[in-house]
Amino acid sequence: MTSHPFSESEASDDFTVGFSHRLVFTRGVLTDTNPLIDDLLRSPEDGPRSGMVAVVDAGLATACPELIPDLTARLDAPHLPELRETIIVPGGETAKNDPAVVDEILAAIERCRIDRRSHLAVFGGGAVIDAAGFAASTAHRGVRLIRFASTVLAQLDAAIGVKNGVNRFGKKNFIGCFDVPTAVVCDEGMLETLDDRDWRSGFSEAVKIACLKDAPFFDEIERNAERIRDRDLDAARPVIRRCAELHLRHITRGGDPFERSEARPLDFGHWAAHRLESLTNFETTHGEAVSIGIAVDTVYAAIEGRLSMTEADRVVSTLRRLGLPVHHEALHGDRILEGLEEFREHLGGRLTVTLLTAVGTPVDVHQMDADLLRQAVDRLEIINRD
Amino acid sequence: MTSHPFSESEASDDFTVGFSHRLVFTRGVLTDTNPLIDDLLRSPEDGPRSGMVAVVDAGLATACPELIPDLTARLDAPHLPELRETIIVPGGETAKNDPAVVDEILAAIERCRIDRRSHLAVFGGGAVIDAAGFAASTAHRGVRLIRFASTVLAQLDAAIGVKNGVNRFGKKNFIGCFDVPTAVVCDEGMLETLDDRDWRSGFSEAVKIACLKDAPFFDEIERNAERIRDRDLDAARPVIRRCAELHLRHITRGGDPFERSEARPLDFGHWAAHRLESLTNFETTHGEAVSIGIAVDTVYAAIEGRLSMTEADRVVSTLRRLGLPVHHEALHGDRILEGLEEFREHLGGRLTVTLLTAVGTPVDVHQMDADLLRQAVDRLEIINRD
Repeated sequence: MTSHPFSESEASDDFTVGFSHRLVFTRGVLTDTNPLIDDLLRSPEDGPRSGMVAVVDAGLATACPELIPDLTARLDAPHLPELRETIIVPGGETAKNDPAVVDEILAAIERCRIDRRSHLAVFGGGAVIDAAGFAASTAHRGVRLIRFASTVLAQLDAAIGVKNGVNRFGKKNFIGCFDVPTAVVCDEGMLETLDDRDWRSGFSEAVKIACLKDAPFFDEIERNAERIRDRDLDAARPVIRRCAELHLRHITRGGDPFERSEARPLDFGHWAAHRLESLTNFETTHGEAVSIGIAVDTVYAAIEGRLSMTEADRVVSTLRRLGLPVHHEALHGDRILEGLEEFREHLGGRLTVTLLTAVGTPVDVHQMDADLLRQAVDRLEIINRD
Repeated sequence: MTSHPFSESEASDDFTVGFSHRLVFTRGVLTDTNPLIDDLLRSPEDGPRSGMVAVVDAGLATACPELIPDLTARLDAPHLPELRETIIVPGGETAKNDPAVVDEILAAIERCRIDRRSHLAVFGGGAVIDAAGFAASTAHRGVRLIRFASTVLAQLDAAIGVKNGVNRFGKKNFIGCFDVPTAVVCDEGMLETLDDRDWRSGFSEAVKIACLKDAPFFDEIERNAERIRDRDLDAARPVIRRCAELHLRHITRGGDPFERSEARPLDFGHWAAHRLESLTNFETTHGEAVSIGIAVDTVYAAIEGRLSMTEADRVVSTLRRLGLPVHHEALHGDRILEGLEEFREHLGGRLTVTLLTAVGTPVDVHQMDADLLRQAVDRLEIINRD
């Protein structure tokens, strides 16, 4: 036999993984006459009937008491998954802060023998979708997740993403992973269950992506801000759909869906937003915090001379006309500045903050001046009082 | 303004994500004269110095007391990551059974401010690599993981995979995710720290993949079985490297790296192996359990008439000549059969078990006959006594 003496060797290789991202806008998804459920959930012919666990945001379950009976009735057919358990979890950031929520969902997946061909269906806002998504992506290394987004914020942003996350060590999204859901369903009917604050909160993410990617889309939001605020669906619907589509295309065609490179341009306004949520114990909603974060970075860019004051005023004024805040007391003092380091640390490497040079034209910067930030905050305090 | 009345709409899209899988065989990776560490870990010029947390398998730390001092000395250079903490975790299945291990690693990542550009380095066997990998893939949705595989099993199989996992609810790998490490380093020197049982345990996975994919490779293992068992590196080295390469190519070129379709052909012998590990409270090592699982499914196929008895004898005999067991008392009775349902459930859909029609030629079957399985177990009990 040949002898094989020691030598170094390398067997490296590159490969790609293909994913499909399915995003559907509908109304009354659980009614008998809507065929979407059959289309999404039909069991394959060659295996046992698949199962389902449903996770429902407590706020939605209360606002929409017919949801669980409707789901039960809709799935009562042999070609659809067997609904084995429905669990109601606290909505909002509690879902992400309390590790018991993920543990409870994992235990239900195990108890109900949900396998990789079976489904976790989650009905709710972005936070519940994030927590349930983490359970779905890690149980058996991934069971099928169907997201039914019930809030404006979830339908135009949070539910579209290919990631999930929960908070640990007091840090937002400290734990999570990248994964692609089987489908995202945005049911317009569910938006009618929202209170005005939650309705309005969602549109800051629309302003954000319009500022970054689509000036004519910003013009449309600006033109219709009051109608959107007042819940005119004919004005809000195209904004929600366009915003969702821009998010989806950014993921699927932006070249870095799992965020392996440095920049994360969709995080405009988010360093201050994440910090503000934490400083206010999540009494500021994510959407409100994003509105304030956008306002801070917009006015900062104008003070720095990077953006015209007229453009900055348009952005801040649009946020206000949408019924969104542009200032919070917690912005004063130095604790907000710690958000820059937390933001850097989450992505790693250099600090990268996205600012605007015009509506529709982003630029990445790698440092922020504390004095100019304080000036921006002071100016926003005055504007917010008007 | 135009009105936008309600209509259904869909914005689905497909996309791909690219990954690089780096696998290197070396010797003395932590010595000053080996440049691999510089190559793998050099910090980018444009950011702060990255950090590192090292996780070390307790068995390896004891067998190799110079490892941690060597690592500390090797990283003491400004172009390399700053080693911020080293934590020693229990080796073997304890690392995957005890949730405190993952929690401890996550806490160290947070405490040491390991970000997405920083590193978790794990030194150990497959179980420690799996647990640390789950922490690395979920902290900040993924920090950089470098696997230093210290056992035969890890170097030829466990460390090559693009998944991680921990056990929950008494089920093996109930929680985990798919993710690609930054690099896998197989250091031949570390194999000298193994006791004979751990040395031998690794080679059942080599028999497995040879049986599935490469008949001439099986011939080589068969020819050199005693030399391999007796730790002749000139015989063992090419087997370890060929096996690792076959695993890597299966992942990178097999078309389904994240196991989204039904079949998982590399799981030959694993339904019984996983169940046996659990039934024996992990006193049977994974490698021994795989040896027994291969023997069961091989003799089963021969009794069923699918495989010639001569071929089956070659497989069983090669396992035994490698010093591996082919039978365990826990195979008797019905509890082993529950492994079939657990195996089905982990993947979902139909039961799919891989059998052989010849060495090098696998076939998927969708049911197993309990009586024939009992006959196979009885026959192996007799063979094992000889």
